[in-house]
Amino acid sequence: MVDAAQIISEAAQKARLAGRTLVASTNEVRRGALIAIASELTTQSDRILAANAIDMNRAQSSGMAQSMQDRLLLTSARITGMAEGLRQVADLPDPVGRIINQRTLPNGLKLTQKTLPFGVVGMVYEARPNVTVDAAAILLKSGNSALLRGSSSAAASNLVLVEIMREVLSKTLISSDAIQYIPSDDRSTVTALLHARGQVDLVIPRGSAELIRMVVDEATVPTIETGAGVCHVYIDDAADFTKAIAILINSKTDRPSVCNAAETLLVNQSIANDFMPLALSALNSHGVILHGDAATQRIAQENGISVGLATEENWATEYNALEMNVGIVTDVVAAIDHIQKYGTHHTEAIVTENEEHANQFIALSDCAAVMVNASTRFTDGEQMGFGAEIGISNQKLHARGPMGLDQMTTTTWIVRGNGQIR
Amino acid sequence: MVDAAQIISEAAQKARLAGRTLVASTNEVRRGALIAIASELTTQSDRILAANAIDMNRAQSSGMAQSMQDRLLLTSARITGMAEGLRQVADLPDPVGRIINQRTLPNGLKLTQKTLPFGVVGMVYEARPNVTVDAAAILLKSGNSALLRGSSSAAASNLVLVEIMREVLSKTLISSDAIQYIPSDDRSTVTALLHARGQVDLVIPRGSAELIRMVVDEATVPTIETGAGVCHVYIDDAADFTKAIAILINSKTDRPSVCNAAETLLVNQSIANDFMPLALSALNSHGVILHGDAATQRIAQENGISVGLATEENWATEYNALEMNVGIVTDVVAAIDHIQKYGTHHTEAIVTENEEHANQFIALSDCAAVMVNASTRFTDGEQMGFGAEIGISNQKLHARGPMGLDQMTTTTWIVRGNGQIR
Repeated sequence: MVDAAQIISEAAQKARLAGRTLVASTNEVRRGALIAIASELTTQSDRILAANAIDMNRAQSSGMAQSMQDRLLLTSARITGMAEGLRQVADLPDPVGRIINQRTLPNGLKLTQKTLPFGVVGMVYEARPNVTVDAAAILLKSGNSALLRGSSSAAASNLVLVEIMREVLSKTLISSDAIQYIPSDDRSTVTALLHARGQVDLVIPRGSAELIRMVVDEATVPTIETGAGVCHVYIDDAADFTKAIAILINSKTDRPSVCNAAETLLVNQSIANDFMPLALSALNSHGVILHGDAATQRIAQENGISVGLATEENWATEYNALEMNVGIVTDVVAAIDHIQKYGTHHTEAIVTENEEHANQFIALSDCAAVMVNASTRFTDGEQMGFGAEIGISNQKLHARGPMGLDQMTTTTWIVRGNGQIR
Repeated sequence: MVDAAQIISEAAQKARLAGRTLVASTNEVRRGALIAIASELTTQSDRILAANAIDMNRAQSSGMAQSMQDRLLLTSARITGMAEGLRQVADLPDPVGRIINQRTLPNGLKLTQKTLPFGVVGMVYEARPNVTVDAAAILLKSGNSALLRGSSSAAASNLVLVEIMREVLSKTLISSDAIQYIPSDDRSTVTALLHARGQVDLVIPRGSAELIRMVVDEATVPTIETGAGVCHVYIDDAADFTKAIAILINSKTDRPSVCNAAETLLVNQSIANDFMPLALSALNSHGVILHGDAATQRIAQENGISVGLATEENWATEYNALEMNVGIVTDVVAAIDHIQKYGTHHTEAIVTENEEHANQFIALSDCAAVMVNASTRFTDGEQMGFGAEIGISNQKLHARGPMGLDQMTTTTWIVRGNGQIR
């Protein structure tokens, strides 16, 4: 019988010791390691594709959904993409050792607050094997050891990717124990990882809303809640209709499966009769299934568009699909009331030409990112210039919004004296 | 029967709505409210002392320990002290609305990352009623609503302090629901508070190690682990003995009951024969009870000083008293190995004149604050120039080390466009 707690404990101890080689490493050493991994991935693509074929065969014979199979699949092009991502992360500025604060106290003590790695970071994620490489890259670059617990459906692919990365590390100054594969045969390793407080510094979940919820509910290890996005687009009475339609359609349909896609449209009642027919027909022509309140249904009916009655559950659902809720509200505060009730503090957008309304919406919206006259799709590390992203936090502690390299560090105070006492 | 979940839910809802008046308030309004509370506390000191007398009577008749009674006691001087603290917090710079990041993207989007309040913050704390006022001041100043769950032993004192603060707020633009007393009759309100995820943004425990452990283990609401401090002083082979003795004695004896006091002395073996007799006799003359490893015991015996054999439990204990562990280690790395095994990532000190040893200790010590040739007692918000402190974090997420006003904020990204889509 596998003792999951022991697996995690041993992995964490090795990772902790490997952390010393990371702490001792320069940015140039970490950069070199990432570039070496990138070229090794392309060199060894046959080995990776062979492992992936095992996972794909198992997926097909177990009748995995086509969309899931697509996420699991690796191709030469996808391997090249992973290698490209590694090279990009390699060249980003070093997040370790940045000085956040510096001062000299009247008693002569010199205070410096600096960034440093968390230490041992666990990732719990689903299907896509490229997360194995993306996450390892960000963690390695930021000086953290990585415990990678992917999906059992991608076990063969993940294992070979970790093996290749470790083989490359073994030829560098960084210990190969800085990247570790955590077996995914059963749930017990996840549970053990989430309870390894003191051994693991941070666990980041990446995947479905259920996975994230499970991690957040169960973990005693510090964790960052990522991703769940019930995002709203509020069309104000002072909105430019052309911008409003473009932003609405882009927010909903550009990539419905991701967390920064919009799930609910809220329209100010004083423009509802004019704007709603345009909005509903645009959504309808993009194949979006609609759920609305009674007032919206009335307007829809007059315009021959089918809108189901939105339930409490609808308003709170992250569809991740071409499906949307539509409601009519009296003003900015009513829009915010709705958002506070059903939102997930991810991204909220207002379309308005009225600066005062925009400011009121910003002040009250209480989320990771507020968009004024822009698509909700811009809450994204790459779009916002972070260079790389390990996830989007929608909690308020530590990082909020896209998390890049800087967010994978903590800080320490270094206090230098010459014998000062109190 | 009291339904604790409902008490917390109602309090949190009121606090959330009151948060809108805080978000709308200027720094001047919040400052004025704090100054008004300060003067009202002194004006109403008879009312406060009368309430405190109820708590003190109950404490005496239940046979509460004298040291606990002293923590519970309020006097005119202590009320003046609370008022003074309020005025200090009132005059600190506004932590809300600080711009952390600002950039314009190639597509014209203007990004601004700003600080804003968490929203609803719960405090769970023990005996001392002044925490009620100190915590409310920091939370109010940083724009957060406060749910205050103090100890049942201080119930009458805490209630009247909250009443006075609310009375003052009712005459300002800030809703009095921004400060709320949570009943402490039984444990159920703590449990409910710790599970009010989505309703409460953050819970901060303040008190004993057991309280903090319970909060961290049980909470599904985000929390910040504060305070537990098994701090070490490592005397390097390149130490100046005069500085070393002064720092050792100050770290252990200046105020043994607090978290930044030292619990363990580690001495480099190559100076042990010379340094240890000085250290042990200095500690002994300050009445410090000693536990040591075998090598230390041998030196102690030669010098006629009593040192018990340190157990595994000793090395991991935060004594909060005049009691200390003493060990001999081979070098900086061995000292760090010991610290990683038994420490709590709070404060570690090295005494050395060797810059390389200092840097190695800093790089590997993995704690909130590292002292080089200075007392561990300097890990303190006021000493480090924070102005006020709500606790000392020894976790790595969000804030690490002393937490002042800035640490009681989160951030949001404000993205302004003119119709941008992806």
